[in-house]
Amino acid sequence: MSSVPELQKRLRAFVAARDWAQFHSPKNLAAGLATEAAEILEIFLWLTEKESTQLSADKLARLRDELGDVQLYLVNLADKFGLDPLECASAKLEINETKYPAELVRGSAKKYNEY
Amino acid sequence: MSSVPELQKRLRAFVAARDWAQFHSPKNLAAGLATEAAEILEIFLWLTEKESTQLSADKLARLRDELGDVQLYLVNLADKFGLDPLECASAKLEINETKYPAELVRGSAKKYNEY
Amino acid sequence: MSSVPELQKRLRAFVAARDWAQFHSPKNLAAGLATEAAEILEIFLWLTEKESTQLSADKLARLRDELGDVQLYLVNLADKFGLDPLECASAKLEINETKYPAELVRGSAKKYNEY
Amino acid sequence: MSSVPELQKRLRAFVAARDWAQFHSPKNLAAGLATEAAEILEIFLWLTEKESTQLSADKLARLRDELGDVQLYLVNLADKFGLDPLECASAKLEINETKYPAELVRGSAKKYNEY
Repeated sequence: MSSVPELQKRLRAFVAARDWAQFHSPKNLAAGLATEAAEILEIFLWLTEKESTQLSADKLARLRDELGDVQLYLVNLADKFGLDPLECASAKLEINETKYPAELVRGSAKKYNEY
Repeated sequence: MSSVPELQKRLRAFVAARDWAQFHSPKNLAAGLATEAAEILEIFLWLTEKESTQLSADKLARLRDELGDVQLYLVNLADKFGLDPLECASAKLEINETKYPAELVRGSAKKYNEY
Repeated sequence: MSSVPELQKRLRAFVAARDWAQFHSPKNLAAGLATEAAEILEIFLWLTEKESTQLSADKLARLRDELGDVQLYLVNLADKFGLDPLECASAKLEINETKYPAELVRGSAKKYNEY
Repeated sequence: MSSVPELQKRLRAFVAARDWAQFHSPKNLAAGLATEAAEILEIFLWLTEKESTQLSADKLARLRDELGDVQLYLVNLADKFGLDPLECASAKLEINETKYPAELVRGSAKKYNEY
């Protein structure tokens, strides 16, 4: 199983071997992340919500590829600040658990809207 | 240490308790992901590349928060297709290691440009 | 009626009076544009396609505001290269008219998908 | 010279001839807009701010094309709500003129940051 520390380590070696750290300012990594997230959005562009649950083999392969790209940028950007994105997600989920009490927001798109 | 399987489990419980799965079509999750990635981009908007390496305490807190949001959407979207985004990243990094031989692309923004 | 040349003129004066041109590299304007486009996306995030056709007064006001922001960034960025975005749109529409012959693509999401 | 009303008219005819209005929910157009804005962002991704002011012929052609795409989506989306994006931009610029008094924000990235 992959872990963030292991991925960080491989990614750092990959970047160092190519002398690419010079291009990886946080500002640039943030732009790369947004670009790759938009490529995921594009996969689903003209599908209905229902169609989006059953991707063709071709689209599924693209999704796998783009999920990987987004995750790599996320790990790379977080690493610039000594952060682990899974830890950030865990902390954020804990905040959300308090912020959106189940009994108050259950099934409500309206509440969720302001998420 | 957080892991994807553990996060998936907590996220599924969080969503189920709120009956929010009805809003979580892959199409919608992809849009949420792109929205949150843009919020990271916004943090760095008017900073120079150099300034972007040293965030203020306020901006760093926002980054931590938004990294968490992007990671949560990524885990949620991947889970709809039985995928683990860290595994996707590991596979993609392997592809990149072959696609960009260090000796050919070292220090080249031009090559990297077509990344 | 507003025109691009008139908007360019007002925008240049607005920027000059504030000495903000120093922040407006094309790279930064492109990031600002992407950020504002994502704010439009966010307005529609949890709505169904059908619901998205009838916005609440509040959401409609936000949309008007964000459409204005995107258009301002578009005019500003295009102006850096002596371009008029409406002319670019007109030229692109002409390309699309040839690229997607009506009799071949009529009603087809599949074709449109590759748009 | 192109105008928004003229572009709206041509775009409506283009869409009607292909029976594509069925795919053009505001929600989908917003996603298309965000996708195209990210393609502009991608053009500048690994360039420095300075390099971004002088694009290669190839990148300039791509920019022209993508500016056209973003403008077409903007006109199309605005049209769904009876809006003209240039009018929205004009109104927004007027708001900004009041919100950011030149004498208070001159040359300040900090103020601009909260723009």
